[in-house]
Amino acid sequence: MRKIKKIAVMTSGGDSPGMNAAIRSVVRACAYYRTECVGIYRGYQGMIEGDMIPLTARSVNNIVHKGGTILKSARSKEFRTEEGRKKAYDNLLENNVDALVVIGGDGSFTGGVVFNKEYNFPIIGIPGTIDNDIFGTTHTLGYDTALNTAVDAIDKIRDTASSHNRLFFVEVMGRDAGFIALNAGVGAGAEEILIPEEDLGLDRLLESLKKSRRAGKSSSIVVVSEGDKTGKNVFELADYVEENLEDYEVRVSVLGHMQRGGTPSCFDRVLASRMGVKAVELLIDGETNLMVGLNNNEIETIDLEKAIKGQNEINKELLRVSDIMTT
Amino acid sequence: MRKIKKIAVMTSGGDSPGMNAAIRSVVRACAYYRTECVGIYRGYQGMIEGDMIPLTARSVNNIVHKGGTILKSARSKEFRTEEGRKKAYDNLLENNVDALVVIGGDGSFTGGVVFNKEYNFPIIGIPGTIDNDIFGTTHTLGYDTALNTAVDAIDKIRDTASSHNRLFFVEVMGRDAGFIALNAGVGAGAEEILIPEEDLGLDRLLESLKKSRRAGKSSSIVVVSEGDKTGKNVFELADYVEENLEDYEVRVSVLGHMQRGGTPSCFDRVLASRMGVKAVELLIDGETNLMVGLNNNEIETIDLEKAIKGQNEINKELLRVSDIMTT
Amino acid sequence: MRKIKKIAVMTSGGDSPGMNAAIRSVVRACAYYRTECVGIYRGYQGMIEGDMIPLTARSVNNIVHKGGTILKSARSKEFRTEEGRKKAYDNLLENNVDALVVIGGDGSFTGGVVFNKEYNFPIIGIPGTIDNDIFGTTHTLGYDTALNTAVDAIDKIRDTASSHNRLFFVEVMGRDAGFIALNAGVGAGAEEILIPEEDLGLDRLLESLKKSRRAGKSSSIVVVSEGDKTGKNVFELADYVEENLEDYEVRVSVLGHMQRGGTPSCFDRVLASRMGVKAVELLIDGETNLMVGLNNNEIETIDLEKAIKGQNEINKELLRVSDIMTT
Amino acid sequence: MRKIKKIAVMTSGGDSPGMNAAIRSVVRACAYYRTECVGIYRGYQGMIEGDMIPLTARSVNNIVHKGGTILKSARSKEFRTEEGRKKAYDNLLENNVDALVVIGGDGSFTGGVVFNKEYNFPIIGIPGTIDNDIFGTTHTLGYDTALNTAVDAIDKIRDTASSHNRLFFVEVMGRDAGFIALNAGVGAGAEEILIPEEDLGLDRLLESLKKSRRAGKSSSIVVVSEGDKTGKNVFELADYVEENLEDYEVRVSVLGHMQRGGTPSCFDRVLASRMGVKAVELLIDGETNLMVGLNNNEIETIDLEKAIKGQNEINKELLRVSDIMTT
Repeated sequence: MRKIKKIAVMTSGGDSPGMNAAIRSVVRACAYYRTECVGIYRGYQGMIEGDMIPLTARSVNNIVHKGGTILKSARSKEFRTEEGRKKAYDNLLENNVDALVVIGGDGSFTGGVVFNKEYNFPIIGIPGTIDNDIFGTTHTLGYDTALNTAVDAIDKIRDTASSHNRLFFVEVMGRDAGFIALNAGVGAGAEEILIPEEDLGLDRLLESLKKSRRAGKSSSIVVVSEGDKTGKNVFELADYVEENLEDYEVRVSVLGHMQRGGTPSCFDRVLASRMGVKAVELLIDGETNLMVGLNNNEIETIDLEKAIKGQNEINKELLRVSDIMTT
Repeated sequence: MRKIKKIAVMTSGGDSPGMNAAIRSVVRACAYYRTECVGIYRGYQGMIEGDMIPLTARSVNNIVHKGGTILKSARSKEFRTEEGRKKAYDNLLENNVDALVVIGGDGSFTGGVVFNKEYNFPIIGIPGTIDNDIFGTTHTLGYDTALNTAVDAIDKIRDTASSHNRLFFVEVMGRDAGFIALNAGVGAGAEEILIPEEDLGLDRLLESLKKSRRAGKSSSIVVVSEGDKTGKNVFELADYVEENLEDYEVRVSVLGHMQRGGTPSCFDRVLASRMGVKAVELLIDGETNLMVGLNNNEIETIDLEKAIKGQNEINKELLRVSDIMTT
Repeated sequence: MRKIKKIAVMTSGGDSPGMNAAIRSVVRACAYYRTECVGIYRGYQGMIEGDMIPLTARSVNNIVHKGGTILKSARSKEFRTEEGRKKAYDNLLENNVDALVVIGGDGSFTGGVVFNKEYNFPIIGIPGTIDNDIFGTTHTLGYDTALNTAVDAIDKIRDTASSHNRLFFVEVMGRDAGFIALNAGVGAGAEEILIPEEDLGLDRLLESLKKSRRAGKSSSIVVVSEGDKTGKNVFELADYVEENLEDYEVRVSVLGHMQRGGTPSCFDRVLASRMGVKAVELLIDGETNLMVGLNNNEIETIDLEKAIKGQNEINKELLRVSDIMTT
Repeated sequence: MRKIKKIAVMTSGGDSPGMNAAIRSVVRACAYYRTECVGIYRGYQGMIEGDMIPLTARSVNNIVHKGGTILKSARSKEFRTEEGRKKAYDNLLENNVDALVVIGGDGSFTGGVVFNKEYNFPIIGIPGTIDNDIFGTTHTLGYDTALNTAVDAIDKIRDTASSHNRLFFVEVMGRDAGFIALNAGVGAGAEEILIPEEDLGLDRLLESLKKSRRAGKSSSIVVVSEGDKTGKNVFELADYVEENLEDYEVRVSVLGHMQRGGTPSCFDRVLASRMGVKAVELLIDGETNLMVGLNNNEIETIDLEKAIKGQNEINKELLRVSDIMTT
């Protein structure tokens, strides 16, 4: 077993709140275990370009609460080529890096697995994405914060919706997974929720809105996931409903990129702190190709490949709760 | 002078944070001066339909902090007709209403002036709109809250912008006036601000962004008012910049209706409390056709017609400050 | 098995954010299952006084996001007497109530268990307290929100602490349990955390603060749980440190009751929605004397008596993470 | 007239939100006018110790939204001595500093005036304090943010107060001035407000609380300024009321230092940006011994000595509004 004397950490893919807290945790854990630590800028692209910086316990002071990532993030086409990965490996060697912590999503982990196979380079993944679409953890880093951001925005929209008896379609992030839509929708008391995992059908949507109006609700919020299954985008949906329902004033709001930023919630900060420590401890113990995850409130591990291949399933019980809440 | 024994209050036009605090203030001031108070739902439309409710000091408990308006708001085509206004007047008479407080914007005030001319009915206006586009007051009700909402959202967007070295176009409200864009832009440290009052020109925008990049800024925020003068909407602007600048990843975010909602800031709550009291005192003192406004931190009055005709000007000094901040 | 035709819901003991979302969920679930629902004001005391109100699906509109509890809460000495419980039972019978959902903490559950033994009355508990000190659930209702409130306040305190090179002692809630202190402390990046479950000792506290100063930290935050084991309250602690460490300017902040209020986080809203539905379904299915709880992200149940007797343990791993973060 | 080639900026006394935005503005304005800029750490103490750093437009990136002050702040006993000021002056000379911007309160300005008299050194003051107790400006930097922080906390406290029918005494900052208490009290809908400028008297307090209870309010909030005139601190007040009113459960919350921190509001960020530019422009134009202030929404100037000697008066009209709101 290779003795781990220097660990590199990087953030890759879409950023999410809590990434800085995770970087801080990796750095502090390295300091605690008297292991050197280096930060790589802009994910795999920075690795290819040798864009690195030594990180000490003090250099991560006062970042636990910051959104974004001080190491910046990027997607790298070059890392998909053998040449790119060769350059990256050479840079790691040159900088005496023995192991790598990747904070990111599926795509970033896939790159890591390929890299590990080619160079037998120790890698641990920390699931960082607001979408919660990673298998092997109940919560990804940033997801809890994004939910609060979405719910806070929808609360504001409800103020104006109910002042004007309007129907709002609010699009939240989640191209392939409806976690944000379903949870923010239930949390914000939405009258209807459209997610990729479930094809409600346009007829049932109209029916549901009519029922809500009959029940005396003069304003309504429909939360729509980016990747919903109606075949219509949120603007087309709004037009469709306005055409097919009488006497509805319909508005659209796309929450957009603000969901990726902001001060992380306490949940995400604590999760990041725990995951960062575990990632470093695993590398020091000679482990590789694992992702750290939260399960039953404990930090556990799962094979990176399983995490990539697996599908995080929407909670069926929550779908039912959602139906009951809109009674 | 008619003795004012019962005052009606209503919210009209687009809603804004602080309207509830203003309603509460009108109601409490009526109670203080032993004057009856009645709330009219949905603005002039509710007046036409006789949709009113008696309001006592206790009925406005716990609303000072609520966004939206408990009296709901609407626009009324019918009130533009003589018949509509006749119905409205008859309803006021029938309910023994002696005077009216209208919380709303220019359009609502115009309706009030016409109504006053036809029926000699005492009316005081409280400027409630997030756009701050009303002459005769440095601040309209809800404007300060909307600024905080916009700045908070742009802060979040900057987190992700700077993590990815991206350029963001963020559209804020303000179809005819750039107050929100200019102030939120300066407040959020935007690199460029596009407002209806100033035609920056597309060339200068490109130049400014290039300069910002040369100065070492790897991410940028451009705040765009709904009604900017480029002739392009925010998505077209983004496309134009992406086509004309190399190596820029451009994203768009439209903040939208969330800017109208949310818990009002302390500023807006205090302003609402002061304006509501003043409106009631003016009516009791036999005044009419006035708008209450904030000037040099004092509550003053202005003729409603002047308020409607006047144009609230963008602060030239702040434009200059904005230029200097983006040095 | 008694057919459940009417369910009562109440909040009892200290209030916590999410209680309204749980009330709403119980009411909506009752409506969904065509079961009547009644709300009891002020917990057991209201039950004794017959202070109840019918609740329909519409009567809980727009409360999912509200802090506090619309049913109010109280502690009842009278319910500890046989006479008190007899009155309460008679009131339930008179109102045709068949089963009870109690939202509260240990004390409230104990009352419920006694009541059930005496009158064989079906009862399900929902754990609502910010302290997270209830066995059988990883999260109590309101705990997540309280963590965010605490962390947000400590973030603000750090701004001023670091501007003045000061040492702050911040007291958070948790008389018998250090969950809030430990998690908010880790989340806020505190330099030291004092909790009831662990006796750090005053000497080690001084040593730790000296070490932090030597490491170049010019300001520090010590998070203290109400019931910490030093034998000193937070003001005495501050005095002790100021006397025993040179050149420290020490300040104290007691966060206090604001931790109990505020708009619930998305986590708490969703948790409340799930728990409320489950509680109603259990009662309809003939169950009793159970508490609903969150385990591994699923809603499960535990015997109420076990929940009362059990001790929710602080996560040892998080204690270790806390040590490492303050390296 | 001395040509100003290098300007120093510092923060002094208690910190307040918006100080960083003001520093940024001074630095950017210097860059715009091609004037060098240097930051002095820890106010006058850092000036004495020669603790300075050159600041460029880029070195103040991403601080506009940060609470606290990157230049840190302190009080300096040494600067009250001639020797101290001599050292300070020598350090300024040695660093070729031609003029000084002091961001702080009364005490900091007094130091500046003395220094200017002795060494004829150009000085402009920017009023930075949350207390709003500076003459010559309607708003000091940080005041608006502190109001929002206080109101947000009191909103949370009201949630729990109204759940338990309790009476809360909430102490806010303001040793000599009741601006925060009066405005936050009105903003939060407090039932009573105690400020240094007005001696309500304990009897009237009791009477007012009784009236509020008779009027059907089951919970109440009394906002107390640190320096209220009752002769009792907030804990003694609470005891007194609990002893003299039957059937009241009284609680105390001291908001404390969190009021000094936090992300500045848009208002404070814009105000800081405007004041910083003006301060630099005044120095370049050869002015000295002035404070920049906000009046009728315009940036104006006032003699520093007048600002120090003058007394910012509480708005009498707002006192009256406060009375009416608690009807």
